[in-house]
Parts: sequence; structure tokens; C-alpha cells
Amino acid sequence: MVIYLDNNATTKVDEQVFEEMLPYLKDEYANPSSMYEFSVKSSNAIADAREQMRDFFGAKSEREVIFTSCGSESANMAIKGAVAHNKSKKHIITTKVEHPCVLNTYKTLEKQGYKVDYIGVNSNGELDIEELKEKINEDTALVSVMWANNETGVIFPVREIGEIVKSKNPNTLFFVDAVQGAGKVDISVEDSNIDMMGVSGHKFHAPKGIGALYIKSNVILPPLITGGHQERGYRAGTENVPYIVGMGKAATLAKEGLEHENTEVKRLRDKLETGILKATFNSRLNSSISNRVPNTTNIGFEYIEGELILLHLSDLGICASSGSACTSGSLEPSHVLRAMGTPFTSLHGSIRFSLSRFTTEKEIDYVLEKLPKVIEDITRISPYQDELEHLRKSRGKCSGGVCNKSNCNKGKCCESD
Amino acid sequence: MVIYLDNNATTKVDEQVFEEMLPYLKDEYANPSSMYEFSVKSSNAIADAREQMRDFFGAKSEREVIFTSCGSESANMAIKGAVAHNKSKKHIITTKVEHPCVLNTYKTLEKQGYKVDYIGVNSNGELDIEELKEKINEDTALVSVMWANNETGVIFPVREIGEIVKSKNPNTLFFVDAVQGAGKVDISVEDSNIDMMGVSGHKFHAPKGIGALYIKSNVILPPLITGGHQERGYRAGTENVPYIVGMGKAATLAKEGLEHENTEVKRLRDKLETGILKATFNSRLNSSISNRVPNTTNIGFEYIEGELILLHLSDLGICASSGSACTSGSLEPSHVLRAMGTPFTSLHGSIRFSLSRFTTEKEIDYVLEKLPKVIEDITRISPYQDELEHLRKSRGKCSGGVCNKSNCNKGKCCESD
Repeated sequence: MVIYLDNNATTKVDEQVFEEMLPYLKDEYANPSSMYEFSVKSSNAIADAREQMRDFFGAKSEREVIFTSCGSESANMAIKGAVAHNKSKKHIITTKVEHPCVLNTYKTLEKQGYKVDYIGVNSNGELDIEELKEKINEDTALVSVMWANNETGVIFPVREIGEIVKSKNPNTLFFVDAVQGAGKVDISVEDSNIDMMGVSGHKFHAPKGIGALYIKSNVILPPLITGGHQERGYRAGTENVPYIVGMGKAATLAKEGLEHENTEVKRLRDKLETGILKATFNSRLNSSISNRVPNTTNIGFEYIEGELILLHLSDLGICASSGSACTSGSLEPSHVLRAMGTPFTSLHGSIRFSLSRFTTEKEIDYVLEKLPKVIEDITRISPYQDELEHLRKSRGKCSGGVCNKSNCNKGKCCESD
Repeated sequence: MVIYLDNNATTKVDEQVFEEMLPYLKDEYANPSSMYEFSVKSSNAIADAREQMRDFFGAKSEREVIFTSCGSESANMAIKGAVAHNKSKKHIITTKVEHPCVLNTYKTLEKQGYKVDYIGVNSNGELDIEELKEKINEDTALVSVMWANNETGVIFPVREIGEIVKSKNPNTLFFVDAVQGAGKVDISVEDSNIDMMGVSGHKFHAPKGIGALYIKSNVILPPLITGGHQERGYRAGTENVPYIVGMGKAATLAKEGLEHENTEVKRLRDKLETGILKATFNSRLNSSISNRVPNTTNIGFEYIEGELILLHLSDLGICASSGSACTSGSLEPSHVLRAMGTPFTSLHGSIRFSLSRFTTEKEIDYVLEKLPKVIEDITRISPYQDELEHLRKSRGKCSGGVCNKSNCNKGKCCESD
């Protein structure tokens, strides 16, 4: 049995997406660039998928959609392309909480002489807009923010940021990493001043290995992968027809499913979150309560080790994570939680649960039945028993009762009992 | 009905490859970087596929295998990585007949100040090894050749070139684009002095959208796509588990099938080639007869238009091509045939037929039944009737009879009648 609550790491391919891809994995295998009749279906399938992505992005033209092999490639192409486009400018602004694929790309650019400012966030994970505003100057080639954070789910005010960027410097390019926004909130680029925006198919029920990049029609970027004429010269390589078709379908389903995501998925996420916060005295919510994508909760369990929690959950068939899968294996605590100033007491014991439209009430009930015992068992062997005892007393009433602490940060738990 | 004779453009996914991929497109969807039990199968599947690719490459260690999204990405990573690795050196040697993904990457590097020498080929498509030898100097960062040409199938002497490169300058890196060699000839890197070698899965019955790059253990390249820690930091992005698994299987099948390729596929290719050359007086073979991969023939039909031939063949359900799918749509005649000095009379009327293990005798018989009439009809409306009449007389006996011309260049046709 697998209870998959790690949908920010990857998602199951939707059965409808699989069915759409199937012909192109089987008999419709023509190279879409070929000249004969047999290739027309492949070629048309890509055109249809491009239109589906255009609609998903809310873009004006399907010519603004480029298919890539993943979210990382989209980000690399946008970022490296943007600095090549604005080549006389040597200043970049991003945030401290971007995904590793973005942060590591900036680390590379720093070595090439770029000055990168990393904007901070508050304890709720919300961006310091004033700091961002102050940093934009004549030399700013690029401002780059994520639509939603992969670890906390916190949403950044993309439209507001876009306005600020263009009012401060119309030549500064604005890139949005929408990998974690796609399928969870409306990521329409219209009226947002976004120049480039990347998504990754496998975060919204397409397979791993396909991504897309929105590039506004008036922005010309050099390709990252040079070669053949595919994607109008923007991206060489024979097109991955099955996955392109799959992502187009997945985008359509994601757009149609946004309401479900923000009602039913959100309800289950809230049930899980409230339930955990209630049932475990040494837990706290790592983020804003309200300003989040509907599927994510990140909960810190104080004075215990996240890896140990995950191991026990894994034994119970429950999949969750302590941060990005792209940084797992690293012993460093999450750079996102550190940027938020998350207390060291819960930094190492923070767990992300991320749901999807396939998550069931029964699964959430199972987690709520099993997890408290796991936390209790691990807490019992923590070397911080004195601190835990203090915590138990000060937050005691939250464990099944009413909490009166103003700084309790336990969300609905404090109000709903 | 589709008679697919364009297997150098792309191939059908082998049913066995599809079956291997299927679980990873369905229930085994875990992110292989995750920490829980559910991800172990994905993670192990990648390890197994890497071992299969190691075996396919004849590499010493599976750590020398990097998965990419396509042959173009492999080439971009190898080439751009090699010049970054040898950053004080500004000279590159390649050939005039490389694939567009390689040639266009060199065009980009020329704009960045690199001097690129393009080595020529003779009328059989064979590389001028002496010219290559002379060009290598102290400043040569990279020598880059293809294992086999996509348009003519002509094989380059990779091992000999490797020895020349390292004897002239041990610091020069040697990259081989083995996209068209893979699955057709033994592409083992052992004792070949190859530093990097790229392949593309969809050329040997894996899907489009997956590639691999061999990087010799002592060569350190910077990544093309920066970000997460995947592929030991060489290539960011969540791994395309289904396609990686598929390519591993396809590589195993390709290796096992090499003998079949060089006997049965070759027999059918030779039957097709000889049959066409016999049945059409205005045709000539565009390449060496013997020094080729077993599945490819490139035949020039003189004084007529290749696009028109392809159109008629398409109406008959026959898929062939006039060059690389990556350059189709362009009205320029093939850069490969031009480099070979192919006479202008057949430059525009050259057609590549490329077979696979799925090509049947019945299909070849069908083409041999239909094609001569197509050529005859198109030849009849050619504006070059005087020249054609001259050709008919001088080569007449080849059309069903014995040809005595020493410069006939019609392969077995001249001997076997």
C-alpha cells in the first residue's frame, strides 16, 4: 500500500494523459519534421498540445510556447537566455527560497561575474517586496521569482512583482518559475508583465521528462540546446511527441481541475494539517496559513529528526518529504526554512505533505490515525526531553484541547476545538 | 499502410521496450531521488539502465554514463563542456558532414571566437584523414566526428582518428556523435581514445526524448543544465524514469541484434539498393558501397526533384527522406552530398532509404514494384529531356542488362546481371 503525499516531488500520470500518449508510443511514431503523410498526425499532435499549453499559460499566441525536457531546462534556458539578451547588464535579483535548479544556476552566473541579490522572506515565507523594489536598478538584467514555493506552498504576488519590475526598469526581464504553481493556482501570464515562465509536466500528472517555457513574443532568447530547427530554432532535438501530447492533456485537465484543487484537495489538506497540529503537541506550521497553494502543508516537529519520521512513515507506506527531492541526500537543513528563520528546534524535523486530486479521504484518515503514534515514539527517544517537557506544558492544551497562546502558530487548531 | 524506410530519422518503439517502460508510466511513478521505500524501484531501475548503457558503450564504469533528453543535448553538453574544460584552447576540428545539431553548435562557437576547421570527405563520403592529422595542433581543444553519417550511412574510422588525436595532442578532447552508429555497428569506446560519445534512444527503438552521453572518468565537464544533484551533478532535472528504462532495454536489444542488423537488415538494404539501381537508368549510389552501416542507402535520381519523389512515395505509403529530418523544410540541398561533390544533376534528387529490424522482405518487394514507375513518371516531366536521353544511351544496358562503364558507380548492378 502506498499513501502518496509527496505530489510536489512528482505526480502519478493521469490515466487520461496516458491514454492520449499511447498512440504516439506505439504506431504513430513518425518524426514530426518529416515530409510524408505518416508524420502529419505527429506534427498536428504537437500543434494541438502547443495550443493547450497556450491556453494553460493564458498566452496570446501558441508561438510563445516552447517545449523542453523538464522544469530545470526551462529555467536554465530562461535565465541563461535572459542574461545573454541583456548582456550589458550584470545584476540579477532572485529570492532566497527558489528551487535548487534556479539557485544553482545563479551560483554559476555569480562565478561568471554577475551580481545576484537574493531577496528574503518573513517567518510566514512571504517575500519582502520592499527589499525587491529597492534592489531593481538600471543594471538589473533579470528578476526571477517562483510562483509558489515547493517546500511551503507559499504563493508569491507575481502580478504585483511584475508591475514593480517594469515600472522600475522596463528593460529588466521577468522570469517566473511556475513549476509548483501549475495545476494548483491560475498561472495565467496575461497582464502580469511576465517575460518568461517555466513549468514541469510531471508536477501536474504528465510524465517526468517534459517541460514548457513561455517566452513573450517580443523577447528573443538564444537557445540553450543548439542544432536542428525544432521549436522554431529555440530548442533542437527531435520532439518527444508522446510526452508533449501528454503534457498538453495534463494542462487541460489541470485547468479544468483548479476548482476541485481549491475546494476538495484543500479541504483534505486542511483536515490533515489541523489533525496533525491537534494530535501532536510538538508541532508547528511552517508557513503562512492562508497564502498557500491548496495541496501543501509543511509542519515542523520540534526536537526530533525529520529523516527518522520519514523512515517510520515509509514503513507505514506513507510518502512525504523533508524538502526538495532535488536536495535529498544532503544533510543540510532546508534553505527555505532557514530563510524563513524557522527555529532550529523544528528545522531538522520539518515534513512536507503534498496532496493531489488522487488523494482520498481514507488516505488522510489513515495518516491521521498512524502519524501521532510515530511522532510520539520518536519524541520519546529525543535527547531533548527537558525542552520537550517545557513545550508540552506550555502548549499542552492544544493536544486535544483549546490553546490560548497568541504565538502558538498552530492554525485552526487554536480556534476550532 | 505504412512502409517505413526512414529509420535514420526515428524508429518505432520496440514492443519489449514499451513493456519495460510501462510500469514506470503507471504505478511506479516515484521520484527516484526521494527517501522512501516507494522510490527504491525507480531508483534501482535507473541504476539497471545505466549498467545496460555502460555495456552498450563498452565503458569501464557505469559512472561514465549520463542520461540526457536527446542526442542534441548530448552533443551540446559534450561540445560546450569540452571547450569549457580546455578553456585556454580556441581551436576545434570537426567534419563538413556532421549532423546539424553539431554543426550549428560550432557556428555558435565561431561567433564566440573559436576557430573551427571543417574536414572534407571524398566522393564516397569518406573522411580526409590526412587533412585531419595536419590540422591538429597545440591549440586544438576538441576533435569531433560522427561515428556514421545520417544521410549516407558512411562509417568514419573512429578508432584510427582517436589514436591520431591523442598522438598529436594528448590534451585535445575527442567527441564522437554515435547517434547513427548506435544499434548498427559496434560502438564500444574501449581502446578508442574517445573522451565523450553521445547517442539518441529513438534511433534504436527507444522513444523520442531520451539520450545518453559517455564521459570518460578522467574528463570533468561543466553541466549544460544546472540545478539539482541528479546524474551526479552533471544534469539537473527529475529523471525521466520510463524512458531511461526504455533506452536501457533498447540498448540491450540493439547489442544483441547487431548480427541480425549486419546480415538480414543488410541483405534487405542491398536488395533494395541493387533493385533500384537496376530498375532506374538515371540513378546512382551516393556513397561508398562497402564502408557503411547496414541499414542505409542514399540514391541520387538524376535530373529530377527529390521532394516530388517523396510526395509520390508518400502517396504509396512509403516513407523515405531527402536528408535529415532536422533540416527538412529547407530548400538547400544536403550539405553532406555537397561536401561529397555529388554532381548537381542528382543533388536535388537524392533519396535516403533507411531500414530497421522491423523492415520486411514484403515491404522491400513492394517498394521495388512501385518505385521504378514513380521515377519513370517524374523523369518523363523533367525539363532535362536531352540530358536524360544522353544518360539513357550511355547507361542503357544497366536498365535490366549488363553495364560495361567503368565509372558507372552502380554497385552490384554492374556485376550481378
